[in-house]
Amino acid sequence: MDFRILSKDPETKARTGLLNLPHGDVLTPVFMPVGTAATVKGIHQRELAGDLNVNIILGNSYHIYLRPGIDTIKRAGGLHQFMNWERAILTDSGGYQVFSLAGQRKLTEDGALFQSHIDGSRHFFTPENIIDIQRSIGADIIMAFDECTPYPCDSSYARLSVELTHRWLDRGVRHFLDTNPVYDFPQMLFPIVQGSVYPDLRKLSAEKIASADMAGHAIGGLSVGEPEEEMYAMIEIITSILPEHKPRYLMGVGTPVNILESVGMGIDMFDCVIPTRNGRNGMLFTSEGVINIKNEKWKDDFSPVDPEGNTFVDTQYSRAYLRHLIMSKEILGAQIASIHNLGFYLWLMREIRVQIEKGKFREWKEQMKKKLLKRL
Amino acid sequence: MDFRILSKDPETKARTGLLNLPHGDVLTPVFMPVGTAATVKGIHQRELAGDLNVNIILGNSYHIYLRPGIDTIKRAGGLHQFMNWERAILTDSGGYQVFSLAGQRKLTEDGALFQSHIDGSRHFFTPENIIDIQRSIGADIIMAFDECTPYPCDSSYARLSVELTHRWLDRGVRHFLDTNPVYDFPQMLFPIVQGSVYPDLRKLSAEKIASADMAGHAIGGLSVGEPEEEMYAMIEIITSILPEHKPRYLMGVGTPVNILESVGMGIDMFDCVIPTRNGRNGMLFTSEGVINIKNEKWKDDFSPVDPEGNTFVDTQYSRAYLRHLIMSKEILGAQIASIHNLGFYLWLMREIRVQIEKGKFREWKEQMKKKLLKRL
Repeated sequence: MDFRILSKDPETKARTGLLNLPHGDVLTPVFMPVGTAATVKGIHQRELAGDLNVNIILGNSYHIYLRPGIDTIKRAGGLHQFMNWERAILTDSGGYQVFSLAGQRKLTEDGALFQSHIDGSRHFFTPENIIDIQRSIGADIIMAFDECTPYPCDSSYARLSVELTHRWLDRGVRHFLDTNPVYDFPQMLFPIVQGSVYPDLRKLSAEKIASADMAGHAIGGLSVGEPEEEMYAMIEIITSILPEHKPRYLMGVGTPVNILESVGMGIDMFDCVIPTRNGRNGMLFTSEGVINIKNEKWKDDFSPVDPEGNTFVDTQYSRAYLRHLIMSKEILGAQIASIHNLGFYLWLMREIRVQIEKGKFREWKEQMKKKLLKRL
Repeated sequence: MDFRILSKDPETKARTGLLNLPHGDVLTPVFMPVGTAATVKGIHQRELAGDLNVNIILGNSYHIYLRPGIDTIKRAGGLHQFMNWERAILTDSGGYQVFSLAGQRKLTEDGALFQSHIDGSRHFFTPENIIDIQRSIGADIIMAFDECTPYPCDSSYARLSVELTHRWLDRGVRHFLDTNPVYDFPQMLFPIVQGSVYPDLRKLSAEKIASADMAGHAIGGLSVGEPEEEMYAMIEIITSILPEHKPRYLMGVGTPVNILESVGMGIDMFDCVIPTRNGRNGMLFTSEGVINIKNEKWKDDFSPVDPEGNTFVDTQYSRAYLRHLIMSKEILGAQIASIHNLGFYLWLMREIRVQIEKGKFREWKEQMKKKLLKRL
């Protein structure tokens, strides 16, 4: 389990790398499709592996813990077995969901008491049991428990919060080092940089997180409503502190343009619900711009979903057909749009890696951004 | 375009046949998956053709007419082109939907005035325009416009209704013969036997329908709430009248046991939403009995969805995983259950054909019925 940098862009901080995980190699920069509840919504596992060539997906500890529950996952032999996914998995710590999804919640020094958004039942997450939960889920990469501050968040609360996250990190790391994997492969723990939009707090947090000496680092609490410039400013500060030789994961980000900019600042890993969630609502990303398939203009457009696309849905279905399915709220519409959008995101990441290796990333990125922002 | 009987069961009226259609050959008895709105819910076209080996699907004229609309279908070059389905399609006449789905409706001698269930807009179906609509959709087999009586229905109304359906049939047949296909292949028209649960009306209707001298015959207005014994009694009467050398299609039926019994009475074609709709709700049909996957007993059952199943979902996913998906209302749960159930229905039809050819259908049917009724 290691990370090797394969090439560096001469004009930006972008780099390509190879992340060697127990469930296979992952080339970076990488986009991880979101498999919230042990499924990437609307996509069969054989499509993820065979059609999209996805090498790593993200699972949500919070969701899996609540349903089907950790006992079931353990009896199945871990999440890989449960969902029949042989390639790599990363699980988040549940911190984000506790603060965004759960009902009533109460934070203490010890952890977070919260109510399930499904049935109102009460649960308690601690830095330690979140490690145990992720040991039982059995992801290749697991996350430390953190408080994800909302936006806006005043600086005094943000400071208290980041300090709590740091104390939780110490406890989480200790517990991680004191425990063994539940299954027969090692796991790596990524601590999470917090600090809202305050440069001094982000700097403090990045230094703290780097000092934990884990195999990789995550950046949380961004893309939660702040202006994009603030997000980019924070990423810039953080990536200048986090050590270069370890992978950097920007959690929950983002649009194709967000990804291009962040790669340019040295980010290696991404996850986001945008391609699947926005896809289900009829928003399609293509190399020529964005399509709102609900628009009347596609009603009788019998050309392929995306003539430049590289998945089977791009050529086997027309825009008019996909529009009809999305307008009619047909399941197949969600399936097609999700595969198309993930196919586009995966293509974008491959292209990013090619351009970095050619040393042409900066120039290509600027051209690409213009196209990506176009409304077709 | 013809129908050839390949074998007859010595002990029942069951027979196997080959229906030669413009979009390919169909072996009968056949089950047609329901593609209501130009999609079999939750299933990609390549899965229908490649994994399930479906050779004919059903489309609903009512739904397709309302959305995406006949203009779009015509511009696409027909439904086959629109949905990218190269194999055969049968469309129903919309009669059933007008009487079960539409809002306010008014019947006249001329036709049926109804309100769309989608947006309340007003539309008028006549025996003639229903032919035009189905010419434009371009199905291989199309249906005559009928009134589908509800259950219960008093005998005086049932008589008036069946007489109206017969007058509509005369007009529909005349219009069918007077018009040409919109695309470059011929279509066949099936008239529909009605008459509620009244033997004399069903006899009258079967005779009328047979006299229309079309390529095949459909039986409508059954499985609408009447006791199964009444349905079987009507089928028995009707199949004794409809000519043997033409295909017989029992519309909207049914459970696996309904299909076995009806095949024994000489039915060749079936369609039903049960495998897909009940599948989405967690009901799985298997060769050993019925599974309600929501049942707690499957929570930690990590065995395959159906060890005897023959689709990829049967072996690639476990019962516990499918239960989790269905309980969580995940799209993938609907996808897996639909493919599994259609795989089972298609297997059942293949097995029916094998048993008829072996002359063992009756004996096998009785054994099979016991298994199919078991709750696992």
